[in-house]
Amino acid sequence: MKLAVFGVGLIGGSFALALKQAKAVSRVVGVGRNPANLRLALERGIIDAIADPASAVRGADVVLVSTPVSQFPKVLEAIAPGLGAQTTITDGGSTKRDVIAAARKALGSKITQFVPAHPIAGAEKSGAEAASAELFRDRRVILTPLRENRRGTVEQVESLWKACGARVARMDPEEHDAVLAAVSHLPHLLAYALVHGVAKRNNSAQLFSFAAGGFRDFTRIASSHPEMWRDICLANRDRLLQELKSYANELGSIRKLIEKGDGAALEKLFAGARNARNKWIQSS
Amino acid sequence: MKLAVFGVGLIGGSFALALKQAKAVSRVVGVGRNPANLRLALERGIIDAIADPASAVRGADVVLVSTPVSQFPKVLEAIAPGLGAQTTITDGGSTKRDVIAAARKALGSKITQFVPAHPIAGAEKSGAEAASAELFRDRRVILTPLRENRRGTVEQVESLWKACGARVARMDPEEHDAVLAAVSHLPHLLAYALVHGVAKRNNSAQLFSFAAGGFRDFTRIASSHPEMWRDICLANRDRLLQELKSYANELGSIRKLIEKGDGAALEKLFAGARNARNKWIQSS
Repeated sequence: MKLAVFGVGLIGGSFALALKQAKAVSRVVGVGRNPANLRLALERGIIDAIADPASAVRGADVVLVSTPVSQFPKVLEAIAPGLGAQTTITDGGSTKRDVIAAARKALGSKITQFVPAHPIAGAEKSGAEAASAELFRDRRVILTPLRENRRGTVEQVESLWKACGARVARMDPEEHDAVLAAVSHLPHLLAYALVHGVAKRNNSAQLFSFAAGGFRDFTRIASSHPEMWRDICLANRDRLLQELKSYANELGSIRKLIEKGDGAALEKLFAGARNARNKWIQSS
Repeated sequence: MKLAVFGVGLIGGSFALALKQAKAVSRVVGVGRNPANLRLALERGIIDAIADPASAVRGADVVLVSTPVSQFPKVLEAIAPGLGAQTTITDGGSTKRDVIAAARKALGSKITQFVPAHPIAGAEKSGAEAASAELFRDRRVILTPLRENRRGTVEQVESLWKACGARVARMDPEEHDAVLAAVSHLPHLLAYALVHGVAKRNNSAQLFSFAAGGFRDFTRIASSHPEMWRDICLANRDRLLQELKSYANELGSIRKLIEKGDGAALEKLFAGARNARNKWIQSS
């Protein structure tokens, strides 16, 4: 089994390591923009060779595209010409509608071979350095199969992600992008906004020096990969703007409660949120 | 050394345990609204006796007031009449201007004996159950001494918090409330708002089921004590509203960048926030 990984970062590198550990692949080649990162991937045994797109795809059983999503059109166009009929493609993109549109355009009739996937296993670390065979263990991976996919292809991709230790769910791409906008994309934006708002002030050093554990955890995701999140914001723009609007309304309601001094309503809202979160934590 | 703790929760209970461990106090009495919590504090050896306000204060060397801040006026009024000249008071309130105003009103000329403090050591757990002798270890405690305090009283309070393992800073009460609004009160509100916004939707179960580690850490502080945070929001209302407004402006600017599709500006903002946060994490 030969695996070709385009973008050997946190997701791509972890996919390779996990499949090697599960003995689901024997040879991994890596393609990427950053030579130093690829060399590190080679040193760490994540990949067995650095390749150009054409030779990476040649004879590959599986291709994973795990670059930031704005690069998908270019990467898929480079993959398409040499793509053999026996090669299956999956991806690690955090948005699915844009990725699918790019794949349809680049792959043409070979779209049957592409099963879109989103492993929900981000971290604030990135690059081959951060890759781990355990990253996907017990994490969810959402597949958004296409009507053109053959059942066997979808099952193959599902079994690969399961071999990484992931729990696989299936979803419609539209639904995927709406759900992730609410529970992932919006929080990232909120965390970036908070840190940016503090960092730009004259007394930012003082502010940071009195920030504690709550601030640290709240803003952990503001240490995420800027280019990746730029791409997600643009790719899922409509859904994210919808979430931003609804969040602004939520904050507006809370602001009014504070202005009115409505302690009872504030406490009720806080208690409701705490209960909902604690219930989720206990069940997850 | 006799310590009287009003409100034997996370902060009050941890103060008692830490000072017992440091052998800075020999006897602790606890006062509170919740008999079950006080019994638990007794069982855990946090306090040696449950007392009413008058007998708790009688002969106490130190009094800690660590209830939610809206209860300070009532608690300080109950303490005032029996307060001996040798007793020093400090507190654990997360806001300082309101606490000081309440203390001036209730204590009159005995205000000299009160040295306001804020241990920055919150947690999403609360009650005597969550108390720990190690809670304040290497955490910051902000003292906002009053012009009426004698130097020796301030030094005594500082040495008590240091005996808990804390790093003590001094600040003006106005400045304290402004700094904490930005790095603590606002983030709590943002986290509560996010969870509330998700929990109230029809598909909240689905949304929570695909929420991952980023969401969990971002919202950890939304599991904080609702009554305590209600009080903080109301006590620090002006500063918090100012922070909310500035955050809404920040979100508005980001929304415009997304609407315009200005990827370069988004990436720059995200990278700036990441760098600022990473620098802070490395230095703290």
